Amino acid sequence: MKAPELGIKIGVFEHGKRNSISDVKGVKVGHVTLIQGEGKLIPGKGPVRTGVTAIIPHEGNIYKEKLLANAFVMNGYSKPIGLIQVQELGTLETPIVLTNTLSIGTAADALIEYMLEQNDDIGVTTGSVNPVVMECNDSYLNDIRGRHVKKEHVFEALKNAKEDFEEGAVGAGTGMSAFEFKGGIGSSSRVVEIENRKYTVGALVLSNFGKREDLTVAGVPVGLELKDWPGKGGKGKGSIIIVVATDAPLTSRQLHRVAKRGAVGLARTGGYAYNGSGDIVFAFSTAQRIKHYQKEPFDIKVLPDSTLSPLFKATAEAVEEAIINSLLQAKTMTGRDNHVRYAIPKEELVRIMEKYGRLEKK
Amino acid sequence: MKAPELGIKIGVFEHGKRNSISDVKGVKVGHVTLIQGEGKLIPGKGPVRTGVTAIIPHEGNIYKEKLLANAFVMNGYSKPIGLIQVQELGTLETPIVLTNTLSIGTAADALIEYMLEQNDDIGVTTGSVNPVVMECNDSYLNDIRGRHVKKEHVFEALKNAKEDFEEGAVGAGTGMSAFEFKGGIGSSSRVVEIENRKYTVGALVLSNFGKREDLTVAGVPVGLELKDWPGKGGKGKGSIIIVVATDAPLTSRQLHRVAKRGAVGLARTGGYAYNGSGDIVFAFSTAQRIKHYQKEPFDIKVLPDSTLSPLFKATAEAVEEAIINSLLQAKTMTGRDNHVRYAIPKEELVRIMEKYGRLEKK
Amino acid sequence: MKAPELGIKIGVFEHGKRNSISDVKGVKVGHVTLIQGEGKLIPGKGPVRTGVTAIIPHEGNIYKEKLLANAFVMNGYSKPIGLIQVQELGTLETPIVLTNTLSIGTAADALIEYMLEQNDDIGVTTGSVNPVVMECNDSYLNDIRGRHVKKEHVFEALKNAKEDFEEGAVGAGTGMSAFEFKGGIGSSSRVVEIENRKYTVGALVLSNFGKREDLTVAGVPVGLELKDWPGKGGKGKGSIIIVVATDAPLTSRQLHRVAKRGAVGLARTGGYAYNGSGDIVFAFSTAQRIKHYQKEPFDIKVLPDSTLSPLFKATAEAVEEAIINSLLQAKTMTGRDNHVRYAIPKEELVRIMEKYGRLEKK
Amino acid sequence: MKAPELGIKIGVFEHGKRNSISDVKGVKVGHVTLIQGEGKLIPGKGPVRTGVTAIIPHEGNIYKEKLLANAFVMNGYSKPIGLIQVQELGTLETPIVLTNTLSIGTAADALIEYMLEQNDDIGVTTGSVNPVVMECNDSYLNDIRGRHVKKEHVFEALKNAKEDFEEGAVGAGTGMSAFEFKGGIGSSSRVVEIENRKYTVGALVLSNFGKREDLTVAGVPVGLELKDWPGKGGKGKGSIIIVVATDAPLTSRQLHRVAKRGAVGLARTGGYAYNGSGDIVFAFSTAQRIKHYQKEPFDIKVLPDSTLSPLFKATAEAVEEAIINSLLQAKTMTGRDNHVRYAIPKEELVRIMEKYGRLEKK
Repeated sequence: MKAPELGIKIGVFEHGKRNSISDVKGVKVGHVTLIQGEGKLIPGKGPVRTGVTAIIPHEGNIYKEKLLANAFVMNGYSKPIGLIQVQELGTLETPIVLTNTLSIGTAADALIEYMLEQNDDIGVTTGSVNPVVMECNDSYLNDIRGRHVKKEHVFEALKNAKEDFEEGAVGAGTGMSAFEFKGGIGSSSRVVEIENRKYTVGALVLSNFGKREDLTVAGVPVGLELKDWPGKGGKGKGSIIIVVATDAPLTSRQLHRVAKRGAVGLARTGGYAYNGSGDIVFAFSTAQRIKHYQKEPFDIKVLPDSTLSPLFKATAEAVEEAIINSLLQAKTMTGRDNHVRYAIPKEELVRIMEKYGRLEKK
Repeated sequence: MKAPELGIKIGVFEHGKRNSISDVKGVKVGHVTLIQGEGKLIPGKGPVRTGVTAIIPHEGNIYKEKLLANAFVMNGYSKPIGLIQVQELGTLETPIVLTNTLSIGTAADALIEYMLEQNDDIGVTTGSVNPVVMECNDSYLNDIRGRHVKKEHVFEALKNAKEDFEEGAVGAGTGMSAFEFKGGIGSSSRVVEIENRKYTVGALVLSNFGKREDLTVAGVPVGLELKDWPGKGGKGKGSIIIVVATDAPLTSRQLHRVAKRGAVGLARTGGYAYNGSGDIVFAFSTAQRIKHYQKEPFDIKVLPDSTLSPLFKATAEAVEEAIINSLLQAKTMTGRDNHVRYAIPKEELVRIMEKYGRLEKK
Repeated sequence: MKAPELGIKIGVFEHGKRNSISDVKGVKVGHVTLIQGEGKLIPGKGPVRTGVTAIIPHEGNIYKEKLLANAFVMNGYSKPIGLIQVQELGTLETPIVLTNTLSIGTAADALIEYMLEQNDDIGVTTGSVNPVVMECNDSYLNDIRGRHVKKEHVFEALKNAKEDFEEGAVGAGTGMSAFEFKGGIGSSSRVVEIENRKYTVGALVLSNFGKREDLTVAGVPVGLELKDWPGKGGKGKGSIIIVVATDAPLTSRQLHRVAKRGAVGLARTGGYAYNGSGDIVFAFSTAQRIKHYQKEPFDIKVLPDSTLSPLFKATAEAVEEAIINSLLQAKTMTGRDNHVRYAIPKEELVRIMEKYGRLEKK
Repeated sequence: MKAPELGIKIGVFEHGKRNSISDVKGVKVGHVTLIQGEGKLIPGKGPVRTGVTAIIPHEGNIYKEKLLANAFVMNGYSKPIGLIQVQELGTLETPIVLTNTLSIGTAADALIEYMLEQNDDIGVTTGSVNPVVMECNDSYLNDIRGRHVKKEHVFEALKNAKEDFEEGAVGAGTGMSAFEFKGGIGSSSRVVEIENRKYTVGALVLSNFGKREDLTVAGVPVGLELKDWPGKGGKGKGSIIIVVATDAPLTSRQLHRVAKRGAVGLARTGGYAYNGSGDIVFAFSTAQRIKHYQKEPFDIKVLPDSTLSPLFKATAEAVEEAIINSLLQAKTMTGRDNHVRYAIPKEELVRIMEKYGRLEKK
């Protein structure tokens, strides 16, 4: 269940068909969810509450046909892999893999292997490959020291990718927490019209940040209202990874601008980018493909910067709703040391939204 | 009148004595307000609705005793002067001057002259000086082409600086608009406790951004409620300058982190950093002074990054309220071509806040 | 006299017809040179050894037809105006004005006025304008506190602009020093072939940096050889502004990459980017014009990044030679307090180059 | 054999006792060298010419006592891990591991495991850890697709670390090429005096960049002289990782400034930061340790920026010589497809240096 179905309206733009990042044509998402054991943490053994989420940015060979991309680091207490090259060359050449912080090495190795399998020229007749891997720390529920994510899990997540994917406590989101509730994967989209052309912007978040008291839903101080709801604790180790996709034709410079507006959506939900929260926004455009073996000058299509404001606002809205959706979609999870992350209580939420005059007629 | 006096509570931290940037000891603010003529715009002649605001960061010789500082550019459609050197060396060595976009040259020249007068070694036996000047575009109300700000006005604003300064449609804020209401200068502060020590963070904004419909007050969609209130128009040419001061001992790297959280406060009010909005956050700390002629190694005191989260949140709150205060303090202004910027209607605002359950008992 | 005429070959690429930034079609340079008084410094009075240099990037209306551009800050002990917006939007919309550090306010004000005169929509029906002004500190020879540059001088430099312009101790270079010799304006160009197409890259420098002992010409330690040549002193207050123009079709992201290679050329001459040296590289491409009033999506032509290496090398070479040319073209100048900056002794230089086996047959 | 022993003097400062990064007290370096098979490339099988180099920044628990650090990206065609957090928090909390591009995942996973073993609080009672891994592409000699580096190799390199370490074709340098000669690991150091205190700056490079013709040794165009020396080919896939250590007390902001001067040293050797060359400079200071569990405000000692110029120059010199040393120390290596990378011919080199008048009396 996503925000609109509960009667919670975030922003003013319409969402796309699925209200998901996969409303941007070609984008697919796959998960592997790892749940095993329970009770007391035995470091290196379990319990296991973690996983992998893979975002496939287009259906072709991504290395041979790269997408324009960029990233904005709102708070760099984070261990992303691949951003330096994306910022320099302005292109994304692999799927994006999300997982837990201590599994980034394994995830990068698996993503490299996946790319090698699809491209037998890499490392032989052409250069290397720049894997994009991002992470959050799920140690409140998960035995993160166990690094239970294996390469097979990454391959499987990549293979699983589809347009209609699950959200909530799945994939990389399995063990994540947001606002001391159960967080994880959430997605949303917006459709904007710029000079009589329609463009879609979609966001997917891996939410794992925030103090309970800060949670804000469509401007309503839900966190303060729910401050005595059970399950608080373990705050301040969080982070959020935000991935924004759009079919609008943008340069990497413009995608950096778009990525920055992801931070606007984050702020609206009660995100302060606390010291320990690694808050990264990654943005790419599917509008055109940059060929790996291109040697001739070529044209790239761009929207004038002066027309981008609606896209900026739509990005903020999609990210804001994706974060709320990550809460709404997640089910209660018990993990390490019997820590419980409760799903945000929907009836309470509806009641609070109503109290503050923000419940839409469904 | 500031937000708390209306019963509008922004955030959770207490504000300082004045609820102003001057709660940070040593910080003073001076204005010169220029209002002349009315009616049809005669470019270069008038009407004049502009001014200068000067922020004095400490009472000593700022060039000889610099403050640690940094800046974050949320959206660089802006013409700030001095940021490159502040970012490289991490220090502020002049007062900060705010004015209209086309008067930055005059303002910089005046600020240089002011510094030369106070320091007869500059350009003779020591290096040059890095003036910090920032701006917004007040052309909706002001004959900005007339560049009516003269050097004397800058000197006067510097001389006028005091702890109890006016807000609203004064100084650099005279001709500014925010959310299609009258904007301008606003200020607020917060006091936080970190490991049993109290620190103050204060914000001053020059607000000149936003579409009416986006205005959000403490989470309430005030802009949508007031969308038919008169005075709309001229949107999208705005900007905001945010200045954050604190007495917490921070390095310039940490002040960059603080500055980024100014963008969180901005986002909460309905700021999307639209394409044409130059959104800059400048942060400095008064906790220690860096001597111009220092040659020996010296100590700087720092708070551990792991303790900074409350300060980040307080910064966001102070900035959010400073923006709202810039609206609340500003009086209706008629300017160029009889454009009218109405003061935000306070009774309506109170009614709306009440409707949404967000009016505090005063 | 430029390096090749002395038999000094810098790099491997051919230079353009003029061996100047104006080999990039459309680029013109104008100077105003201010020399007045002599003897003891009377701060604010003289002697005057300063000026203005203006670079016109194309012959049309630059505001209405902007050029793609970017900048790299090698060392930010500098007071450039306009870089923040250039980096955000990727465009240059005014001529570039160079002058002394304390005259940046006046120069910016004049450049704004010049732009207003050419565009009566600025500040009335469209937004503002982003003047690009950069500076070095000429206080070793000049009464910099006097701020002897007036707005008329800027207008005159803009009007004077032509393809065949002087170099050396002229314009903004009048009072500048490099490696404790007379420095100032220098220019050079290179022509490269990329996939059977020829592109020109031109550099213009305002050189005002370096210790005598560090001077390196085509790899030869000329500075050490000339360490006892008269005229040393006043070191360490320098800076360098490097402007790179090219007709290769590049995005602003790619122009940032090009700008970084300006620092390579700088390093080759003995530039260490000392603490007090504000070293800025500004790069623009004349290949395409971005229309101010563009609303529809449009195409920009780009070279694939994989083909840019020759352009990077050519940029480094052009900058390296432009710096050497700034020395070769400058004549001895006596200024403030009878400080003398000697022209680099050409016969000695030739002798040293020969000694180290680096003199080409002319 | 290093440059001074051949009579090649780079720069003017004295080097430290070992002329190595380990002249900075506490810094140790360990290698694992992997050589197996020969002849035709069988992707995934061999031949193997690769390895791992580990830099231990101090002898204590690096996670519990972090060092101030920063990084400069001269050209981001590179896949470093860990820089984002280092840039945000200004600290290094793990050893630095260097390896081949496609083994970064394995290296990161191993480094994480190593850190977990030393710190049983990570992921249990405290946050996660930020591994720093950097790479070059050794595919000219190595079956890079085989990812022959295993976690044991990383552990072994960490265990092997010592002050007197090998250079040249060892560790991560085993399969690397520079200027179409055999490159790899090189190191050098410089000692500077600042206000009567001595500081050491040491550099270690993993060199894998450059075209033969560009090679410059102490300003001499050695590459052009050796352009017909056998072994050319495979150019343009290179990169360089530069690690700078110092015992000078610097903030992370200042270490960013130091890191930038690594690019000066690189430029002096003929480095143009070609498109495909990932050129990264990482700098850290051993002068003070930042405690992981620190909660109280604390002092950090800093050198005034105005005294840093000698350190900047020394950094450039140490990096320049480290690159030359990486060539001088490397032995001829035959690898994949019988590609041969010859050691730079020392007699020829000496002859050339003499020809150009740059050979010192030993």
